[in-house]
Amino acid sequence: MEQRLSIITLGVADLKKARKFYVDGLGFVPSSASQEGIIFIQMGSIALALFNHDALAEDATVPPSGGGFRGVTLAYNTRTKEEVDELMKLAVKAGGRAMRPAAEANWGGYAAYFADPDGHLWEVAWNPNFKLGKNGELILPK
Amino acid sequence: MEQRLSIITLGVADLKKARKFYVDGLGFVPSSASQEGIIFIQMGSIALALFNHDALAEDATVPPSGGGFRGVTLAYNTRTKEEVDELMKLAVKAGGRAMRPAAEANWGGYAAYFADPDGHLWEVAWNPNFKLGKNGELILPK
Repeated sequence: MEQRLSIITLGVADLKKARKFYVDGLGFVPSSASQEGIIFIQMGSIALALFNHDALAEDATVPPSGGGFRGVTLAYNTRTKEEVDELMKLAVKAGGRAMRPAAEANWGGYAAYFADPDGHLWEVAWNPNFKLGKNGELILPK
Repeated sequence: MEQRLSIITLGVADLKKARKFYVDGLGFVPSSASQEGIIFIQMGSIALALFNHDALAEDATVPPSGGGFRGVTLAYNTRTKEEVDELMKLAVKAGGRAMRPAAEANWGGYAAYFADPDGHLWEVAWNPNFKLGKNGELILPK
């Protein structure tokens, strides 16, 4: 079996609000495969999808109720330390919530967290131990 | 700002159990960047990380409690319809739970869902409308 992750879908309460944050605010460009009820955004080798929260639960055949920590975080790794501050400013301006202020991390980098309007957590991290390729791909050692 | 997603981290109750599922069961190969408390797995341009659930919440400075639907799903897109059944069998054999049996989907493909031992939901989907590149990358139309 090939080692692969194709899509990460974030459940959102209001797709228009999510679009405002990710597309208008962060500047992510939606694919033309997006439809009225779903937004697809190319993220390197995978797609980020934004889809109605309750419809996503229904698709997975689970009850839609839930709360508290989701047990999942996303990370955006930057090329420079300065970009962490820039991206945090942009995320807050776009309607995100700063969760952890940017600071030196115990693993040797510089990191912060924001939450998107639906509470999905993103770490913004500059990690000098992790290599980014020319297209922004994260390249782990084998 | 570059359009990028670098890491998705799944909170897990027991890293040894998570390793058994993802590494021994599904056959994903951990990077040598993995450490005692964290497993990193290269997934195309991003990394999948497995990390203690409570420590992940602490890192994001949120309370660790939570339950119900997480509002996030992952997807593994296959090259063929048959692979959906094969991967579902493998996931269940590895200790995952079949959530939705494989069936024709209303968007024209064939899909199923499983939950990993911590309840993280994975869709396994054959989607003839979405192109996979030679390295398994999902290629959306612009």
